[in-house]
Amino acid sequence: MKFSLAPSASMAGLLLALGYITPAVAQTFQRLGTCPQLGCIFPPTEAEFIAGGHFDIRLEVHAPINGSEAFNNGVPDENFKLTLDNGKGYSADVTSFFQIQDSPIEKWNFTYYEDLFARDAKAPTVVNVASKAYRNLTLYEPGQYQLKLSYYDTQQTLANWTVHEPAKKRCAKNVILFIGDGMPQSAITAARLIGHKQINGKYQSRMQLDNMDNVGLQMTHSIDSFITDSANSATALYTGHKSTVNAISVYADSSPNPFDDPRVETIAELFQNQIGGPVGIVSTAFVADATPITLATHTRDRDLYAPLISQMLNGQSNFSWVDWKGPDVFFGGGAEQFKPGSGSPNKTNYYNAFADQGYQVVNDNTALQAVDTSKRTLGIFSTSNMAKWLDRHVYTDNLKNGTVSPLVNNTGPALDQPGLAQMTLKAIDILKARDTENKGFFMMSEAASIDKMFHVLDYERALGELLELDDTVRQTIEHLEKIGELDETLIIVTADHGHGFDVFGSSDTKYLKVATTDRLKREAIGTYQNSGHSEYQVAPGSRPENQTVVNGPQGPNFPVQWDPRYALAAGFAAHPDVRETYSTDTRGPRVPATNSTAKGDYIASSKDQPQGFVINGTIPVSNSQGVHSLTDIPVFTKGPGSDKFKGVYDSTQIFFKMVEVLGLGKTSRDGK
Amino acid sequence: MKFSLAPSASMAGLLLALGYITPAVAQTFQRLGTCPQLGCIFPPTEAEFIAGGHFDIRLEVHAPINGSEAFNNGVPDENFKLTLDNGKGYSADVTSFFQIQDSPIEKWNFTYYEDLFARDAKAPTVVNVASKAYRNLTLYEPGQYQLKLSYYDTQQTLANWTVHEPAKKRCAKNVILFIGDGMPQSAITAARLIGHKQINGKYQSRMQLDNMDNVGLQMTHSIDSFITDSANSATALYTGHKSTVNAISVYADSSPNPFDDPRVETIAELFQNQIGGPVGIVSTAFVADATPITLATHTRDRDLYAPLISQMLNGQSNFSWVDWKGPDVFFGGGAEQFKPGSGSPNKTNYYNAFADQGYQVVNDNTALQAVDTSKRTLGIFSTSNMAKWLDRHVYTDNLKNGTVSPLVNNTGPALDQPGLAQMTLKAIDILKARDTENKGFFMMSEAASIDKMFHVLDYERALGELLELDDTVRQTIEHLEKIGELDETLIIVTADHGHGFDVFGSSDTKYLKVATTDRLKREAIGTYQNSGHSEYQVAPGSRPENQTVVNGPQGPNFPVQWDPRYALAAGFAAHPDVRETYSTDTRGPRVPATNSTAKGDYIASSKDQPQGFVINGTIPVSNSQGVHSLTDIPVFTKGPGSDKFKGVYDSTQIFFKMVEVLGLGKTSRDGK
Repeated sequence: MKFSLAPSASMAGLLLALGYITPAVAQTFQRLGTCPQLGCIFPPTEAEFIAGGHFDIRLEVHAPINGSEAFNNGVPDENFKLTLDNGKGYSADVTSFFQIQDSPIEKWNFTYYEDLFARDAKAPTVVNVASKAYRNLTLYEPGQYQLKLSYYDTQQTLANWTVHEPAKKRCAKNVILFIGDGMPQSAITAARLIGHKQINGKYQSRMQLDNMDNVGLQMTHSIDSFITDSANSATALYTGHKSTVNAISVYADSSPNPFDDPRVETIAELFQNQIGGPVGIVSTAFVADATPITLATHTRDRDLYAPLISQMLNGQSNFSWVDWKGPDVFFGGGAEQFKPGSGSPNKTNYYNAFADQGYQVVNDNTALQAVDTSKRTLGIFSTSNMAKWLDRHVYTDNLKNGTVSPLVNNTGPALDQPGLAQMTLKAIDILKARDTENKGFFMMSEAASIDKMFHVLDYERALGELLELDDTVRQTIEHLEKIGELDETLIIVTADHGHGFDVFGSSDTKYLKVATTDRLKREAIGTYQNSGHSEYQVAPGSRPENQTVVNGPQGPNFPVQWDPRYALAAGFAAHPDVRETYSTDTRGPRVPATNSTAKGDYIASSKDQPQGFVINGTIPVSNSQGVHSLTDIPVFTKGPGSDKFKGVYDSTQIFFKMVEVLGLGKTSRDGK
Repeated sequence: MKFSLAPSASMAGLLLALGYITPAVAQTFQRLGTCPQLGCIFPPTEAEFIAGGHFDIRLEVHAPINGSEAFNNGVPDENFKLTLDNGKGYSADVTSFFQIQDSPIEKWNFTYYEDLFARDAKAPTVVNVASKAYRNLTLYEPGQYQLKLSYYDTQQTLANWTVHEPAKKRCAKNVILFIGDGMPQSAITAARLIGHKQINGKYQSRMQLDNMDNVGLQMTHSIDSFITDSANSATALYTGHKSTVNAISVYADSSPNPFDDPRVETIAELFQNQIGGPVGIVSTAFVADATPITLATHTRDRDLYAPLISQMLNGQSNFSWVDWKGPDVFFGGGAEQFKPGSGSPNKTNYYNAFADQGYQVVNDNTALQAVDTSKRTLGIFSTSNMAKWLDRHVYTDNLKNGTVSPLVNNTGPALDQPGLAQMTLKAIDILKARDTENKGFFMMSEAASIDKMFHVLDYERALGELLELDDTVRQTIEHLEKIGELDETLIIVTADHGHGFDVFGSSDTKYLKVATTDRLKREAIGTYQNSGHSEYQVAPGSRPENQTVVNGPQGPNFPVQWDPRYALAAGFAAHPDVRETYSTDTRGPRVPATNSTAKGDYIASSKDQPQGFVINGTIPVSNSQGVHSLTDIPVFTKGPGSDKFKGVYDSTQIFFKMVEVLGLGKTSRDGK
């Protein structure tokens, strides 16, 4: 008891006063997200759980050595104490409550800047920390819990937790969660405009997303900032817990170890352990990317790809956790984590590691289509992210120059890459074949490069990926119908966050390219009545006849031409310096900005849309790409339980709705 | 028969060939929207009607004198013929079909440019026109109709019309349609962020819009371009017919007279004539603005304010049309159409014109609150658009310098302006009091300045208007409950179009303002984790304590502070040159761009956010404001019939859904 001389009331007054005179502690940098006081509980107040779900607890007490919060000469209280109250009259110390041993004290320090001025002055604040962690805990009893962390003798941090009751009845056998990464409704609207024909403003065909049973809206913000990344938002969707940017199915603590942060159980872990049915993970990204990998791994730092691939195969090893047997299907790009080298676990051939555990391994679409559907399957079809729909279908020569072969000892191109639909349909076949006891399956299928192409302001490629996702959902419904699973499958299509993208008119690209100054080039932009019709649905060289529907070469859901004279003019809220003609780059994905100095000062690339006009950026000049935005995201659902996804809700509720539909959760160790 | 020598097959082949060699006829400028051929039928193909609704038919035959479509030496065929087929075996000439007299031939010409190059070369195309119009027609029989316009001997323009069957049963007594003008979901998300407190990412209160019964999405594009204005989109919502930019409840023809375009009946006209209940129109715009005025007027040109106000009072006078007795409630700004002068009909005192027809006239909130609710009421509270919520509640000194008094012979300020909630609740009281036969009422209430403030990139004022709308919906529900009408009232909240607005981070305005170069100022923008919490919900000078909810001075649904150090950084897809600090302008609505030359070359105003960095524009330099965007728009509904508004649909379907809910339409002249 370090402060026994100070009566608690006056200490509280002092701290309150301290609090009100330290406005410099603000939001560009935070001492630690979700911990505005000097004592931290993770999971923090407002956390929600499903009864029977697993989690870790992390406690921290901070003692800043300097800065506006400097306290106790930088000595953190090691005698902190956590009590839990179950809201029904039982209150106990954490060890008694969970009937566990106490954990040892851990100590470390970290630094942060109080604001940009402190950063420029190179004046960091140093914080000493005392901490404990408790692993692999469970609350089986639904209800409201109160937690109280007591420290520095008189200080308290409180947390209210809600544990939800499991559903009485499971209403869907299978769940397929489609994620269009970075897909706001504005992008769906633009994709519809280029992919579907209008006659006098009436669409002659529609997106599959337009024809689902229910529409809802989800809020995507982080726990400690209002713009999320894909790791953090995947955590919300898969675990029901919002977290911090870059965190994967953990709450971010302040420790230097990125693998000791307090974990929360994912829908895939719950499904595999409680139901025992097969789990599939499909993505057009590299498979160690946030959206696929977050389904069954845990870390503070999404960039640690090799250890994450190892976790995905082997489960958690450093601290006690639930079992994870590996996914039944794992499809995507990212061969750099499998080919022996700097990106793979221990620099080993990690295809072999999967094969050793009974996976069949495929590396192109031909092999994919020929798999034995009874076996667990790893399909890695390229290094890095997979090729984009537009390059696989329209500008196919772009694939030939690639060096992205997934094969060991091969640095040539990867020409035979499957599309999202081919991966998804084959995944369904494997999951169904492996579901020998008819328990149902869970699959996540991600159109990853909607996001990746929006980041580089390559709007056409982003919309191509979006149309491919829509076509995949359509084909999935048809396939499920054919194999007799449609009526028992809930299909969810949503995104993890938005981009501040919207179409505002058309660009007469012919006029724009020959105009001689940037200000004259802007005359090419047609707004309102001058935006005109979508020329993407008109055969090149023909008139915009309103009477005829002509399908594109890739089918009725795709443009007839991709690079018309009158192109969509679209804007982006947050972008680096960029040059725009609003033409499709036929050479491959755009690289809009280039580094003008060694220290990361990005300017519009002279090689990107060289006949365009320059728009200066809206974000720090160290950014080479656009960034995510705040907007709520649509949720389209079809099938049993889809009505639960109506309305407007937080992203974390998608986890709880899936849990409810699948009847996950349990109220005792051995049963429901 | 001018082309009797040409056999029809070869003529068709010739025309087809002509069509394919004229790609210059494209989209920046169109000869005439909805008329890609030389013969035009209005309403055009794809038009939908409710049985018993009224409409005009306009036929045109075009003969371009020059340009890529030059035809017949510029002599239009006057012997064109329209036949209708009811799809059930009856086909007849238009006059026989509707049992009407034939109309006289009208002739005119117009010019247009084939593209921007033609415009720059000052080389217009001249088109001679022969035309007829048929007025005030009705189709009572539901079904599919085929129309065929024959002209130039061998040419045909076809149209397919759908006439919808009226609902068997009316399911709502009252309908209140709230329109947040220019309100995309990205703006609702931003409003929620500044108006409602989060603790660890969980909102402690929610928007009323978040808590409605159903969410849908509507597509807003025009009939002949993909970006709409508010006249055109209001036409879609109120009549079920998409139209052309600037057109109000008509299809735009090519004639010089803006009041002879073919009309379609509005929901207000239908409601007044078929049900006979009271109709209310409320807006924070000037009342002659598109969204309020479109409910019961008809013109090609939304800018003809004085004649439109006359139409709103007196109905249609130049051609036969349905009766219109004037609205029971008409509230908003726009005194310039009522004070005698250049803006009022015949320069007369138009308050008197309304008073002569039995309206009580009020000009401030005090008088509004004291009205006799049994009387028809005109409430005009300012000239131009009404004051913004932010200036009425936070920066109240800004009102004092105004010259917007609605009073005749008064050029002082309008200090006692009601808010949207005050107008809407009083309107409900009047409509209920006037509904002496319990027939139900229809009201449209518009938060107009969401749009107007987005146009000038004044994000904070736009979000203030949006929060006021949300608060108005909340108060409306409470009020309807109190007066016993809630269970019988369908409430719809939607927008008419979007703006390409989205929040992408925060701005450390303190850092931004003192940074010395534009590129350094951009360092102040925090993205992802550096966006931090919303400081709008933190009391000025205090820390962002996560544990406490503090209501703002204007109530729990509004910010605690409006100009925090860490402000929202938001982008806009389509804007003029602009300077940004992302601070709230405390002096009144922003004026971001200024005309640098006599010919309209707008640059960022040095008086607007002078400490900010300049972002160059993305639209023609003649634009002083941002422009609308494409994105689908949310539709929130509550009450009887709200489940009909689920899903994704065209804007015109909102008319048909309202018609269905109200049981409007009839299948014979005298009955249902």
